Amino acid sequence: MNDEYNHSSLKRGPVAHDVRDQIVIAATEHFSRYGYGKTTVSDLAKSIGFSKAYIYKFFSSKQAIGESICTNCLGGIEADVRKAIEDVDQAPEKLRRMFKEIVQASFRLFSQDQKLYEIAASAAAERWQATIQYEQNIKALLQEILREGRQAGDFERKTPLDEMTAAIYLVMRPYMNPLMLQYNFDVIEEAPVQLSNLVLRSLAP
Amino acid sequence: MNDEYNHSSLKRGPVAHDVRDQIVIAATEHFSRYGYGKTTVSDLAKSIGFSKAYIYKFFSSKQAIGESICTNCLGGIEADVRKAIEDVDQAPEKLRRMFKEIVQASFRLFSQDQKLYEIAASAAAERWQATIQYEQNIKALLQEILREGRQAGDFERKTPLDEMTAAIYLVMRPYMNPLMLQYNFDVIEEAPVQLSNLVLRSLAP
Repeated sequence: MNDEYNHSSLKRGPVAHDVRDQIVIAATEHFSRYGYGKTTVSDLAKSIGFSKAYIYKFFSSKQAIGESICTNCLGGIEADVRKAIEDVDQAPEKLRRMFKEIVQASFRLFSQDQKLYEIAASAAAERWQATIQYEQNIKALLQEILREGRQAGDFERKTPLDEMTAAIYLVMRPYMNPLMLQYNFDVIEEAPVQLSNLVLRSLAP
Repeated sequence: MNDEYNHSSLKRGPVAHDVRDQIVIAATEHFSRYGYGKTTVSDLAKSIGFSKAYIYKFFSSKQAIGESICTNCLGGIEADVRKAIEDVDQAPEKLRRMFKEIVQASFRLFSQDQKLYEIAASAAAERWQATIQYEQNIKALLQEILREGRQAGDFERKTPLDEMTAAIYLVMRPYMNPLMLQYNFDVIEEAPVQLSNLVLRSLAP
């Protein structure tokens, strides 16, 4: 599951795994204090108390560390979204909650921590693997809800499922992508409600 | 029509009007070469060959000049959009063309001229009057099309017209606002088509 594993050719047992986690935790702390852009791996090594060479045993680059942090953050949002819909039976309500929670969770994360926002923004701008994976997961979750709603007769079945998914994903995208989300803070409350209503009208059988 | 008129208390005849236009044209040229952010009114005055005091007779600030430039640019987009739908009879097709043209015209303007983009981005970020007016005009045009479609029986009439307008406007917004548009360049072709389809499904009677 953790994509950053590809970045190192080391064979790792549980100990190495712990060191990786340790580096990621320390790096998150360090970046969120001093920023991601300006920090070098040397700075980071110094602050953690590891040698630069030792860090490079686990991560091939600063971006590889950033990817791990990003995977954690975006994984957190995804977990919040899944949690928000787990007890809901009806697909239309799932869709509403999904949209609402994705906006709220993204907003919480990125507005709480400006420096973390900086990493997520780099990830989104440079299309890091962590971002691509996250987008695919959210799209898959969306499609799952649409499929459920179709089977239950809540949603129309004429429009190809892929087309439906892609279009609704485009509606959600400006509220997920941190680079765009920052320009939507003024509509953060009403947008998910109004857009869910519109999307649900478009899904009516 | 020209909102910048509020910024000066001068009574102006046709000559003054010409001088204002002259300043705006020269400033557009100057900003698009040297950028908006870094240029001062002094720089601008020097390059046009007017005194700073003379420019201040017509514009209260650099932003006031920027507002005029912005009003011209956004007015240009609006004119393109109106032209794109003028010969169309059916409201659904008008909506499609409106969405397509707003994306295309914004893209043309902002990708052709990076420096002009810089002014529009400042305008959007700081909510200049030119931006607010433009958004209102586009919303009004959208509402007009929706009203037409309702009257012709092409669109449903249950949803309050204001709610319908606000939601569709939210769908279009990420492709109008230059700050968000820059992150949508990768979907500039398919997004207006897919989103128009979704919006039209939501409008089905």
